[in-house]
Amino acid sequence: MADIIDGKRVADNICKKLKEKLKHESSTPTLAVILANNNSASKIYVSAKEKKSSQIGIKTCIYRFDSSITQGNLIKLIHELNADDSVNGILVQLPLYKHLNQNEILNIIDPKKDVDGFHPINTGRLCSNLNPYAIPCTPKGILKLLNEYGIKLQGKNVVVVGRSNIVGKPLALLLTNHDATVTLAHSKTKDLKKITKNADILISATGHPKLITADMVKKGAVVIDVGITRQLDKKLVGDVDFEKVKNQASLITPVPGGVGPMTIACLMENTYELFKLQN
Amino acid sequence: MADIIDGKRVADNICKKLKEKLKHESSTPTLAVILANNNSASKIYVSAKEKKSSQIGIKTCIYRFDSSITQGNLIKLIHELNADDSVNGILVQLPLYKHLNQNEILNIIDPKKDVDGFHPINTGRLCSNLNPYAIPCTPKGILKLLNEYGIKLQGKNVVVVGRSNIVGKPLALLLTNHDATVTLAHSKTKDLKKITKNADILISATGHPKLITADMVKKGAVVIDVGITRQLDKKLVGDVDFEKVKNQASLITPVPGGVGPMTIACLMENTYELFKLQN
Repeated sequence: MADIIDGKRVADNICKKLKEKLKHESSTPTLAVILANNNSASKIYVSAKEKKSSQIGIKTCIYRFDSSITQGNLIKLIHELNADDSVNGILVQLPLYKHLNQNEILNIIDPKKDVDGFHPINTGRLCSNLNPYAIPCTPKGILKLLNEYGIKLQGKNVVVVGRSNIVGKPLALLLTNHDATVTLAHSKTKDLKKITKNADILISATGHPKLITADMVKKGAVVIDVGITRQLDKKLVGDVDFEKVKNQASLITPVPGGVGPMTIACLMENTYELFKLQN
Repeated sequence: MADIIDGKRVADNICKKLKEKLKHESSTPTLAVILANNNSASKIYVSAKEKKSSQIGIKTCIYRFDSSITQGNLIKLIHELNADDSVNGILVQLPLYKHLNQNEILNIIDPKKDVDGFHPINTGRLCSNLNPYAIPCTPKGILKLLNEYGIKLQGKNVVVVGRSNIVGKPLALLLTNHDATVTLAHSKTKDLKKITKNADILISATGHPKLITADMVKKGAVVIDVGITRQLDKKLVGDVDFEKVKNQASLITPVPGGVGPMTIACLMENTYELFKLQN
């Protein structure tokens, strides 16, 4: 039976250390958050980021828009935030309203304020292992969790399921840079089970509840579940069939309480790091 | 016994079509090439690029430097080339002299003139599948070869050996964007044979002669050899033990005459595409 990774504990430790550091700063880091969708999950995420920032001592400015917001006005706001020296990080909560061009918005954020690490310059620097200003929060959080639990990456076979620009692809690059042998699987992969069965470390980031069943996991593997889906009964579930897979894995993240808290903790850390870079 | 991929023929066709197109242009695309090392292979590559450009109708300006060139002067030159409207593409032949900072140089090339696609903005756009101005020539050439020989990528297991910023990593991203399931192996990979044996398409880009032996290749696999090493007897050899692997593969590239000509053809195509973008 697997040990359960306590993402909340690791995240709390990161936040505690950040709070300590911030006490010694003469000014307060500021994170601007743009919420331009009416997705209830996004609203919950933004509230959670706001709350955690406030606990740590990071100031947040939340810009909430209804669906009348235009691309032009959003671009104007981002240019203003880029130019505003009191703003250290800019986060655009995804997805945006469908009428907005998400890539154009992400691409005009100053890469030095791109707290999510989604600007092509930061993605490109991550790819070439050249110090991005910020590393995307979820991949960074997963790396920290593995490190905290003593999981070495060098030479390990890692299978990442899901190739999103936000998690799967940057995560595959980050793990490759840390000497893992990474396979990036996705919706077009044939015989997923054959591939996941080879994984020393299996990471799923698809948003498909119970995609990863016990027969897809090698005995003793480390299983990281990035998926988070709210069921009709309001319960949050991951990509992994936790109750059965935990008998097969050596170490496993729960949902909730695994990767989720790490994503927010890394957002706090990224905000602090950009603040230090600018001050 | 495998069919042999004729990279020279495919490359010649690309160049022939480009030459035709260029006849109808009112001006001539110009490629600036910076050679700042005394590596004999680099000199040969630059000559080959110069010769092919001239055959097609692309003007080249070659900037050759001895080891007294400074970082500051090279930066100044790149800024001048960026500002010069008559220059459509800028290529920095790698590696540079050891005293020069290669990443700094690559990062200041105007991404719209970055004919090799090595600028972080272009790498980042490739990663996120967002139309880079240019795709790195060798990965692009490999994709074209596979396409020319009717090899479908969707759902195929592709193993790329070698994680360079120039070939391995951008190639893995490009193939992922084309729906292949990609494993990126490298010098820290354990039990390489076990991994390569699963490959429907095996691509090696390490520069280690005969790294890929017949027992590492699945019967019927497609084998692409990016490696090119000059032996003491002056003979060029690839990463793949061609004579033995060809009995195992269904399709295989030779060295020379496989990927090499495609890299130059794609450089020509990238130069033309940047020229069209600017005109």
